[in-house]
Amino acid sequence: MEKKWVYLFTEGNKDMRDLLGGKGAGVAEMTGAGLPVPPGFTITTEACNEYFRIGKQFPEGLWNQALAAMHTLEEKTGKQFGNPENPLLVSVRSGAKFSMPGMMDTVLNVGLNPATLEGIARLTNNERFAWDAYRRLIQMFGKTVKGIEGRKFEHVLDKYKAKTAGKQDTDLTIDMLKKVVEDFKAVYKKELGVDFPDDVHEQVSQAIEAVFASWFGKRAVDYRNFNKISHDLGTAVNVQMMVFGNMGNTSGTGVAFTRNPATGEKALYGEFLTNAQGEDVVAGIRTPKKIAELKNDMPEVYEQFLATAAMLEKHYRDVQDLEFTFENGKLYMLQTRTGKRTAQAAIKIAVDMVKEGVITKEEALQRVEPMQINQLLLPRFDEAAKKKAAFLAKGLNASPGAATGVAAFDADTAEEWGKAGKAVILVRPETNPDDVHGMLVARGILTQRGGATSHAAVVARGLGKPCVAGTEAIFVDAEKKLFKANGQTVKQGEFISIDGSTGEVFAGSIATIAPDFKKEVDLNELLGWADDVRRLGVWANADYPRDAIQARKFGAQGIGLCRTEHMFFETVRLPVVRQMILNAAPAQALLNNLKRAEENLSKKSEDKAMLKAAAEARKAVKASHEVKAYEGALKKLLPLQRKDFEGIFTAMDGLPVIIRLIDPPLHEFLPSHDELLVEVTTMRLKGKKTKALKEAEEMLAAVESMREQNPMLGLRGIRLGITYPGITEMQVRAIFEAACNVSAKGIKVHPEVMIPLTGHYNELAVSQTALEAVAKAVMSEKGMEIAYKFGSMIEVPRAALTAAEIAKYAQFFSFGTNDLTQTTYGYSRDDAEGKFLLRYVEDKILPANPFQELDQIGVGQLIEMAVKNGRKVRPELEVGICGEHGGDPSSIGFCHKAGLNYVSCSPFRVPVARLAAAQAALGDTTRDK
Amino acid sequence: MEKKWVYLFTEGNKDMRDLLGGKGAGVAEMTGAGLPVPPGFTITTEACNEYFRIGKQFPEGLWNQALAAMHTLEEKTGKQFGNPENPLLVSVRSGAKFSMPGMMDTVLNVGLNPATLEGIARLTNNERFAWDAYRRLIQMFGKTVKGIEGRKFEHVLDKYKAKTAGKQDTDLTIDMLKKVVEDFKAVYKKELGVDFPDDVHEQVSQAIEAVFASWFGKRAVDYRNFNKISHDLGTAVNVQMMVFGNMGNTSGTGVAFTRNPATGEKALYGEFLTNAQGEDVVAGIRTPKKIAELKNDMPEVYEQFLATAAMLEKHYRDVQDLEFTFENGKLYMLQTRTGKRTAQAAIKIAVDMVKEGVITKEEALQRVEPMQINQLLLPRFDEAAKKKAAFLAKGLNASPGAATGVAAFDADTAEEWGKAGKAVILVRPETNPDDVHGMLVARGILTQRGGATSHAAVVARGLGKPCVAGTEAIFVDAEKKLFKANGQTVKQGEFISIDGSTGEVFAGSIATIAPDFKKEVDLNELLGWADDVRRLGVWANADYPRDAIQARKFGAQGIGLCRTEHMFFETVRLPVVRQMILNAAPAQALLNNLKRAEENLSKKSEDKAMLKAAAEARKAVKASHEVKAYEGALKKLLPLQRKDFEGIFTAMDGLPVIIRLIDPPLHEFLPSHDELLVEVTTMRLKGKKTKALKEAEEMLAAVESMREQNPMLGLRGIRLGITYPGITEMQVRAIFEAACNVSAKGIKVHPEVMIPLTGHYNELAVSQTALEAVAKAVMSEKGMEIAYKFGSMIEVPRAALTAAEIAKYAQFFSFGTNDLTQTTYGYSRDDAEGKFLLRYVEDKILPANPFQELDQIGVGQLIEMAVKNGRKVRPELEVGICGEHGGDPSSIGFCHKAGLNYVSCSPFRVPVARLAAAQAALGDTTRDK
Repeated sequence: MEKKWVYLFTEGNKDMRDLLGGKGAGVAEMTGAGLPVPPGFTITTEACNEYFRIGKQFPEGLWNQALAAMHTLEEKTGKQFGNPENPLLVSVRSGAKFSMPGMMDTVLNVGLNPATLEGIARLTNNERFAWDAYRRLIQMFGKTVKGIEGRKFEHVLDKYKAKTAGKQDTDLTIDMLKKVVEDFKAVYKKELGVDFPDDVHEQVSQAIEAVFASWFGKRAVDYRNFNKISHDLGTAVNVQMMVFGNMGNTSGTGVAFTRNPATGEKALYGEFLTNAQGEDVVAGIRTPKKIAELKNDMPEVYEQFLATAAMLEKHYRDVQDLEFTFENGKLYMLQTRTGKRTAQAAIKIAVDMVKEGVITKEEALQRVEPMQINQLLLPRFDEAAKKKAAFLAKGLNASPGAATGVAAFDADTAEEWGKAGKAVILVRPETNPDDVHGMLVARGILTQRGGATSHAAVVARGLGKPCVAGTEAIFVDAEKKLFKANGQTVKQGEFISIDGSTGEVFAGSIATIAPDFKKEVDLNELLGWADDVRRLGVWANADYPRDAIQARKFGAQGIGLCRTEHMFFETVRLPVVRQMILNAAPAQALLNNLKRAEENLSKKSEDKAMLKAAAEARKAVKASHEVKAYEGALKKLLPLQRKDFEGIFTAMDGLPVIIRLIDPPLHEFLPSHDELLVEVTTMRLKGKKTKALKEAEEMLAAVESMREQNPMLGLRGIRLGITYPGITEMQVRAIFEAACNVSAKGIKVHPEVMIPLTGHYNELAVSQTALEAVAKAVMSEKGMEIAYKFGSMIEVPRAALTAAEIAKYAQFFSFGTNDLTQTTYGYSRDDAEGKFLLRYVEDKILPANPFQELDQIGVGQLIEMAVKNGRKVRPELEVGICGEHGGDPSSIGFCHKAGLNYVSCSPFRVPVARLAAAQAALGDTTRDK
Repeated sequence: MEKKWVYLFTEGNKDMRDLLGGKGAGVAEMTGAGLPVPPGFTITTEACNEYFRIGKQFPEGLWNQALAAMHTLEEKTGKQFGNPENPLLVSVRSGAKFSMPGMMDTVLNVGLNPATLEGIARLTNNERFAWDAYRRLIQMFGKTVKGIEGRKFEHVLDKYKAKTAGKQDTDLTIDMLKKVVEDFKAVYKKELGVDFPDDVHEQVSQAIEAVFASWFGKRAVDYRNFNKISHDLGTAVNVQMMVFGNMGNTSGTGVAFTRNPATGEKALYGEFLTNAQGEDVVAGIRTPKKIAELKNDMPEVYEQFLATAAMLEKHYRDVQDLEFTFENGKLYMLQTRTGKRTAQAAIKIAVDMVKEGVITKEEALQRVEPMQINQLLLPRFDEAAKKKAAFLAKGLNASPGAATGVAAFDADTAEEWGKAGKAVILVRPETNPDDVHGMLVARGILTQRGGATSHAAVVARGLGKPCVAGTEAIFVDAEKKLFKANGQTVKQGEFISIDGSTGEVFAGSIATIAPDFKKEVDLNELLGWADDVRRLGVWANADYPRDAIQARKFGAQGIGLCRTEHMFFETVRLPVVRQMILNAAPAQALLNNLKRAEENLSKKSEDKAMLKAAAEARKAVKASHEVKAYEGALKKLLPLQRKDFEGIFTAMDGLPVIIRLIDPPLHEFLPSHDELLVEVTTMRLKGKKTKALKEAEEMLAAVESMREQNPMLGLRGIRLGITYPGITEMQVRAIFEAACNVSAKGIKVHPEVMIPLTGHYNELAVSQTALEAVAKAVMSEKGMEIAYKFGSMIEVPRAALTAAEIAKYAQFFSFGTNDLTQTTYGYSRDDAEGKFLLRYVEDKILPANPFQELDQIGVGQLIEMAVKNGRKVRPELEVGICGEHGGDPSSIGFCHKAGLNYVSCSPFRVPVARLAAAQAALGDTTRDK
C-alpha cells in the first residue's frame, strides 16, 4: 500500500508531533476538540526525510495525496483551488517537532493569480483587498520561497508610498497596488529569470518544496547543532485555508495568552486589530487594541474566544499562546501553543495552577526552569529609575542580568579600564575570539549584530554576564568609537545601561536593586514543595559569616566549602601572612633538622651530655630569627582565624560547616613578580644602594624562589600542609578552639575539616593523623568533646581513581570539580577560556563549557567511580560537590544520579539548586518514593 | 605438642628460607649436601615473631629446645659448652629471609669465660690466641649485643697498641691482652652497671635476644620500608660451632666467588689469610693472598675447596659467594650465597651457563637485571685515563655513571654555574631538600655522609645522575668551600671526577667513553634470546636522523616519538619560527574572517557584484602584512621539515615512524619574558625612543599576550593545531612530501602522524579530517600511494576515560605518560620535583617518583581502561607508550600486562627495554607460548 504522506487536520492529534510537527499536531488537536480551525492538511516529516533521501524530489504518491486533501478542503469550504468563480486560497507553513528559527515562515494567499484575483474582488466586493493580497503573495513567495532579498520588494513599495500623503501601505490606491504588482513581477523575473507562476498548483508545490529545503538551511542547521536537536527529524508542511481578518470592520486578527506571561496574573492578555492580517499586528504599523476591548467591539466573538481560551488552557493544562482571526464576525483559531513566560510568571502560574487543582505539585516543580529562579534573583534595574532613563534601543535578551558601565568600543580599552577597576560595557558591531580578553573584564556586552547563538551571546552566557545582542537599532562605529541609537550618540567613556533579561539599552547609569527573597511568596512556596521531593542536600560555599547568613536565608542546609585562605587577603592580615610565608622555608628547614636530630637522639637517650646538647640546639633553633618570625606570624593569625570560624559556626548553628585548609600556592599572597622586577631594575639603574632597594631585592628573590611554572599543579593544597605543617596545624587549632568557644555558648557546631588536593592516600595518612592529634589536643585543653569529621577534596583524577584507598582515611569526599575538570581535560581555566575554550564551544568542538556544565562523560565518570569505590570501603561516606557545578541544574541532575549526599554552591544559587535537585528526584525513576 | 622453634642444620634445606632465614637455609642445604659445615642450629623466624608478640620474652619451649640442640652439638663435636676441660665455643648470627643492613652482625667466641679460656689455651697450646679470643668476645658482645659505642673499646686497644713497636693488634703481648680484657670489663661495667657475664648460657641467651631486637632496629626498619619488605617476616638466629682460622699456620680463612664477579670469567676468584679470623680479611690489616696461592700453601685444602665450590655452583645453578675457614688443615664451609656481580659479569655468566648446559635461555634472561644493561651502556671513564688520575677516595656507589665537572659546594653556586652551561659536581657534607635545585643541574653529586638510602642517593637515582655518597674518607668544609681527601685539597671551581658505578672519586677531569654496543658479544647474544621471547615491540624516541640511526643499532623496531618542534629550536630556524609565531594570531583572525565571509557568500553565489567584492577581500587578506609574514614563514619551514623527515625515514627504512605534530606552547620559542621586561625598563629609563626600544616593546607585548598562567595546561598540542591549522597542515605536507620523495628512491616508509593532547573526540574529528585531506592531496600531487596511520597521544585523563570515542578516529594510541602522570596526579613536574616530590619519595609518602616509575595504581588504571575500551571499538588499534616510562623495567612489565603493542624509549634504553620486555613475557603466565 502506498505510504500515507498527508493527514487532514481531522486525522491528527497532539500526540503526533513526531509525524506532523508541533504546529500540525496543535491544529489537529484543536480541530478534534471541535474548535473553529480553518480546515487544512499536513504533509508529514517522513515525507520531508524521504524527499531528501531520494535526491530532492517528492516521494511517490505525495502529490496525489496532497491534491486529494486539497479536494477535501474544497468540499468542506465549498470553494475551489484555482477556480475564479469561488477561489480557495491557502497558507503554507513549516512545522517541525520543535519550533526553530531559520525555518521557512508562512506564505499566505497561495492560489491567487490574475483570474482568481478577479473572483476574490468580486466575492468580497473589495478590489483593493484583492490586489493587496496578490502583491503580498508575490512578495512573500519571492522572498521566502525563492530567496530574493526583501529590500528589492521594499524598494518598490517605498517608491509608491513616497507618492502618497500618509506614506503608509494603507495609503496605496488600487492603481498604485496594480503597479506595485507589475513591478514586483518584474523584480521576480529579473532575479530568477522566469515569470511569477500563475499556475496555483505550481505555487503550492514550490512552496512545499521550499519548506522542505529550509530544513537544511544554514541557520536551522546551526540552531539544531547548538541545541543538540537531531537532523533526522525533518519538518512537516501545513496547508490551510486562508481566512481574512482584513475583510472589513467585522474582521480582525489577534494574539493572546490565557494568562499574563509577564506577571502570571490569571487574565486574558493580548491584543487585536480589526480589518488586519496577522502580519500587521507584528509590523506595528497600527497600534493594536487590548484584548479586553474586543468585548465592546465584537461581543459575540469575544465570548466565543474567552470560552475557547479557557477550554484550551484546561485541555493542555498550561498557559496557551493563541493566534486567532475573525472573518466577517466568525472566529477562527489559527494556532495554540504553550505560552513562553518570564521567571516570575512561570512561578506564579505553576503555584496558582496547583491551587486551582489543574496540576500536581510535582508537575508545578517541573514547569519552572531552575535557572529562571536565578534570573529572578539577579540584580535588576530599579523600575522607577529605569522609567526615567533614556531608552536607546531593544536588542536580543542574549544573557540575563542588568549592568551599568562606561562604553568601551574595543577589547583592549575594555580590558585596560576593567583592570583599573572601572565598570565597563563592551560595545562592538559583533564580537569574535579576539575580543574575549575584553569580554572577560566587562560588566556586560552589547552588540549590533548576531543572534542568540552569536559569539557574543555564547561567550556572555558562558561567563554569566549580561548581554544584549543583535541590537539592529543601534549603529556602532568602532573606528570613531561611538554608537548611535534613537537619535542619540553615545561616545566611548559615557555611561550606558543594558538589561540582558529584556534586551533593553539605556543611556546613562541606572541603579540596580537586589530582589528580596523573602517577599517572593510563590517562589518560597514552590521551593518548599521542592524540599519535600528532593533527596540531595543543598549546601552553600561561604567564606565569611555574612555569606553564611545569606546562604541560610536562601535555604542552605550547611556550608560545603569555607575557603580559609580568603581571609588571609584582608588588608590588615596580609603583612602577617607575608611574614609567615617569607620565613616558612628557612624556619621549616631548621625545624626539620632539629626533628631529625631528636629522632637520632632518642635511640641513645641515656647520654646526658647529648641530651644537654640537644636541648641547647632546640633552644637555638627556637631563638633563630626565621623560626621566631614564622611561629610569631602563625600565633598572630591564630586568633584572627578563630574569630572568623566563630562567626561562621554561629551563623550555621546546628548545621554542618566544611572548612577547607589552606589551598593556593603561597606566592599568591606575595607582591607581583613583574612589578617587583621593574621596581628593582629601576632602583638599580638609579644607582643608589638604599635600604628600600635591598628590601625590594630580598622580596624579589623570595618571590622568585617560590615562583612556579604551573602553579595550578605545584606546591599547594595538602602538599603545602605537608611541607609547612605549622600552617595547617594553626588552622585546625583555630577551628577547634572556635568550635569549643561557640559550643560553650550553647550553639551546636558540626565542624568538618577538609584537606585539599589529595592524590595519594599516604598524604592523608601523614597529615590527617597529625591534624586530628591537634584537634584532640585542643578539645582536651578545653575539656570538651565535639563531634567532627576529617575528609578530603577529590580534585585530581588520581584521587578519584584511588578513592577506595582514600576513603580509609577520609570520612567525607567533596568533589572540587573546578580543579578536577582542569586536570581531567588538562585545561588551565585561566588560560583556556581566553585562548581556545570559548571558541571550542562556539565551534561545537565541545558541547558546553565544562567549567559551567559538568562534563558527565569524562569528569562524571571519575565522580561515579569515586562514589562507588569510596562507599564500598566506608558505606556511610558523606559525598558532595563544591565546585561551581554545584549550582548548575544539569550538573545537579548528574549529582543526584551519581548518589551524592549534597551539592554546595554559591549562596545565590541555593534556590536554583533546591529546585534542580527536586527535578532530578522527580526524573529519577529508580528512586524509592 | 610443643611448637618446634629450633632446627639443627641437619634438619633444614634451601627451601626453608621463610622459616630459617637465608643463612640458616643455606648452611642447612650445605650440611645436607655433605659439605664440611661446622655443626649448629637455627632458631626460627617464627620464634622471633612470637618473641615480640608476647612482649619480648622467649616463647615457651624455645630455651629448652636450644639447650637440647646445644647438647646435640656437644655430642657431635665431643666438646661441651662451658666445660673448661674441652670447651665448645659458638658464634651467634642473625639471618632473615632477605639480607638486610642494620641487622645484628656476628658475635664470635660465645662460651668463653675465665675458666674455659684456660681450657682453650691448654688445648690449643696458644695462650695468646685464647686471650685474644676473649677480648674479641667482650668487645663484640659489648658493642653488638649491648650497644656500647665501639670507640670506647677502640680507645682501650689504641692505648696499648701505642706502647708496642708495630702499633698493630698482632703486636700486643699476652700481658697486654690480659690488661685489655681487664679494661674492657671495666668499660662494660661502667656503661651498663653490671659485670660482663661469665655464665656461658647467659651469653648465648642475651645474644639471641639481641638478634631478635635488631629486627626492629631503626636502620633495619628503614631499610625494609625502603625496599618494601614486610615487617612480619622476622629474623632467624644461627648458633654454630666456632672454628678458628687463627690457630696457627695450618689454619686460615677466606672468601671466594666461584666465578669472577667483575668480569664473569669462569675461574675461582677470592682471597685468604692464614692464621686469621674472618674479620681480619675484611679489616685489611694484612694483605690477603689470592685464592690460587692456596694451592701451594695447602694443596689438600685447596683441592677440597675447589671441588666444594664446583659442587655448590652446580647445586645452586648460579655463581656462589663462599666463606670458608680451615682449622689445623681441616676445611669448613661457613656460608654460601648467590654471588653479587657487575653488569658485565652477570651477562657473561648467564650466557656461559646456557652454553654449559647449566641453565636454560629463559633462566639466563631472568638472571640479568635490565637496568644493569643500562649501566653497561652508560658513559664510563676511559680506563687508561682513570689509571693516571689522582685517586682521592672511595665512597658508596649510590647512583651509576661517570661524571666530570667543577666542584661546587652549595646548591646556589651549582645552579648558577650549571645554568651557565658549566659541568658541575655538587659536593656537600650531606644533602637535604634545600639542595635539590643544585642537584637538578649538577652532572653528579658527591657527599661525605649518608648511605644508599640517603637523600643524595635517592634524589640522584631519581634524577638518573651519578652519585657517590657516604664518602667518609673525605672531609667537606662547606663554609670554606673545599674538601680534603687523601692528603689533597680540592677547592671550589676545581675539576673532580666521580664514578657512581664504583664509588671512586678522583681529582681533575677524566675523559669518558661510550661503550661499543656491537662489541658486547654476550649482551647481543642475550638480547637475541630476549627478542625471541618478548611479545612487546621496542621502539625508540628520536627527533633527528642521527638518533634514529643510533636507535636502530640498539635494536629499535620503529620510532615511537619524533618531536617535530625540536627541529624548530635550531639557531638557523628560530628566526623563521618566531616570524611565524608573531604573525600567527592576527593572520589567523584575518583568515577566519575571510572564511566566514566566504561561507555566507556561498548561499548567494549568483550575485556577481558580491562575488567580485569577495574576491577583492580575499586578495586584500592575502596581501596583508600579517598573512604574508605568517604564510611566508610556513613556506620557509616546509622544506626544512621535509628534509628532517626524509633523513628519519631513510634511517628507519622498512620500519614505522611516528611523527608528533607541534606540541609545546608557542611562547616557548620566544625570548624570555623577564629578560625583555628588564631590557625594556632599562631602555625606557635611559629615555631615548630608539628603534631598538620599539622593537623590544613590541616583542614584550607579543610575549605577554601569549604568556600563560599554567602553560602545561594551556594552548598547546591539538589545541594549537586547531587554532592555527596552517602550522600542522605545513607539517603534514612536509611529512608526506618527504615520504613520497624517499619512497621514490625505493625506501620503505611507514609514516604515522600523531596528534598530541586530545581530550575530546571532536578535536580529532575536526583536525584529523583536515590533515588527512592534506596527506591525500600531497599523495595525489605526487601520484603515489603511501600507507599511513593517523593517531592520537593519550596524555590527559579524559582521553583515557573516553578512549572508545577517540578510537573511532585514531588508528593508534600512544600513551604520553609524562603528561598523563602530570594531569592524573595534578603535578607539574618542573615544579614538583624541586619543591616536594623528591621529598615525598624520601618520606615514603609516594612509593617511587611517578615520573620515573609508572604509577600503576592510578595512571596505570587509566591506561588499562583506554586499551580495553579503545580495542573494543577498533580491535586492531596499535597501542604504545612514548613517555620516559617506556625505558623503565617495572613500567615495561606493566605495559606488557596491559597488552600494549610496543614501548618506545630513548635510544640508549632500547637494550634495557628488550630484556625487560622478555622478562615480562616470561613472568606472564597467561601468555600463549
